[in-house]
Amino acid sequence: MTLLVVGSIALDSVETPFGATADALGGSAVFFAHAASILHPVRMVGVVGDDYPFHSLEALAKQGVDLSGVERRKGESFRWKGKYSYDLQNRETLETRLGVFAEFQPDIPKAFRDSRYVFLGNIDPVQQLSVLDQIQNPTLVACDTMNYWIHGKRRLLLQLLERIDVLLVNDSEVRELSGDWNVYRAAKWVLKRGPDMVVVKQGVYGAVLVQSDHVFYIPAYPLDEVYDPTGAGDSFAGGFMAHLARTDDLSAGNVRRAMVYGAAMGSFAVERFSVRRFEEIGLAEVTARVREFADLVRFDIDPEPAIDGGR
Amino acid sequence: MTLLVVGSIALDSVETPFGATADALGGSAVFFAHAASILHPVRMVGVVGDDYPFHSLEALAKQGVDLSGVERRKGESFRWKGKYSYDLQNRETLETRLGVFAEFQPDIPKAFRDSRYVFLGNIDPVQQLSVLDQIQNPTLVACDTMNYWIHGKRRLLLQLLERIDVLLVNDSEVRELSGDWNVYRAAKWVLKRGPDMVVVKQGVYGAVLVQSDHVFYIPAYPLDEVYDPTGAGDSFAGGFMAHLARTDDLSAGNVRRAMVYGAAMGSFAVERFSVRRFEEIGLAEVTARVREFADLVRFDIDPEPAIDGGR
Repeated sequence: MTLLVVGSIALDSVETPFGATADALGGSAVFFAHAASILHPVRMVGVVGDDYPFHSLEALAKQGVDLSGVERRKGESFRWKGKYSYDLQNRETLETRLGVFAEFQPDIPKAFRDSRYVFLGNIDPVQQLSVLDQIQNPTLVACDTMNYWIHGKRRLLLQLLERIDVLLVNDSEVRELSGDWNVYRAAKWVLKRGPDMVVVKQGVYGAVLVQSDHVFYIPAYPLDEVYDPTGAGDSFAGGFMAHLARTDDLSAGNVRRAMVYGAAMGSFAVERFSVRRFEEIGLAEVTARVREFADLVRFDIDPEPAIDGGR
Repeated sequence: MTLLVVGSIALDSVETPFGATADALGGSAVFFAHAASILHPVRMVGVVGDDYPFHSLEALAKQGVDLSGVERRKGESFRWKGKYSYDLQNRETLETRLGVFAEFQPDIPKAFRDSRYVFLGNIDPVQQLSVLDQIQNPTLVACDTMNYWIHGKRRLLLQLLERIDVLLVNDSEVRELSGDWNVYRAAKWVLKRGPDMVVVKQGVYGAVLVQSDHVFYIPAYPLDEVYDPTGAGDSFAGGFMAHLARTDDLSAGNVRRAMVYGAAMGSFAVERFSVRRFEEIGLAEVTARVREFADLVRFDIDPEPAIDGGR
């Protein structure tokens, strides 16, 4: 089924203890599309300035990303500059320049309006609602957000929740949104406001899928080396949504599989700076990693363990 | 097979946002024994002062804990007083009074010296080594420690590592011990120094078992209400070790099962203050929770998912 992403297309300057990038490819739509397109074609909507190295998006086009929804405007592209702590657990935003993104009015190309699987990257809830108004009959809409919108546009965000199926956020975001520090209670608070699923991303600890009657946990892939956590969440969303779109199967078992593809994509994202890891891998690497996740959590409980009675 | 625990027997005064206790049952050996004895008989070694409400340990005796290794000394019992933050993620030690524990010289009763499964609770590495000197031929020795010993008795702790099979610690401890913030690299650092297994406990995120060739992850049981995190780690150790002792099976699959029993016991520990939850439950509740863990992480990856080609 058709898969659409609407989000930021940015130039990131990131510093971690292991190196730094300057004006590297970034943004929610870019990470999402890199990860998703390994599994399934992607339609991408966003905006770049006339300073954007558009040719560097061509790797995406070759991999089946339709860039016809990417608007090129006069002006500066969205730039983000950040620095991570020594253990990569905290980051400081050094600079945010919205550029042409400040005036972004998502105009979904006619050919994209029949999209069935839709991911709304972390942008203004006004823009997210506007996208939904333009989509005819989506099967599944997933959405990300951040604390900035949770504080600043709460009312619109609550309207948006009524219209989406999956909220993908990190643990601090779901806590802020609900006002509850317990992640499971916080997720249930969200479920009451519309979505059928909440995916809480927990960084190095993995991610948890909360539904009204089930909880599913997938750990993060154990990595000895992490270079740059930027984009892990959007890459997770890319794997998650692309697996659902390519299978068009929303059964409980398949949604769990989608979580595993999400976790796999998140783990690739952090192995190199920017989107570089995605330029190295293909379906074979993804499939192999997904199988490793199976081993990571596999156990069998014997119905009747051999008990020796304390001899 | 026989199971021995050596550790602290304390009176805890704990304050959380949900209530407080004063001089409640606590200590590593007590939490361990409460959890373990649901699955398997336990031999317990420790020391209490003449002010200890010894009768309150009788629930343990009824459940198959042999208290003949618990020394009763003239003097004050070990007391710990702590306060947890609003989200239970941090705690402050308000007071520690070692009392008779300061002079504790573990004297393993002759009848306990043939113990095959041994858990060394978080006590001075000198005491832990002394216990090992008294055990004839253990099958498996597991050990806990804390930052206080990692800093203050590092040389002895490294000697101890050479003689144990499993190190059970939390993530900050394994980081401090190894000097590496990456938990997987840190665990491998430990593996090089003796143990075959490192279990890294990660609180609300679960626990990870690291062996030279495998990693196994078990999440924490999703709880809407957590009252008191005290003792969760020792209860985890109790479930883990008791399952191994009762089955006497160190195969990879059974060690994973032991991790699940550990996680189940840890989740019960935090549902009430002190050891109260263990006074309410039996094997049936434990078995039911273990089965819930299976559902929490279960997924199947189809070898060939039905892919619709992007229609």
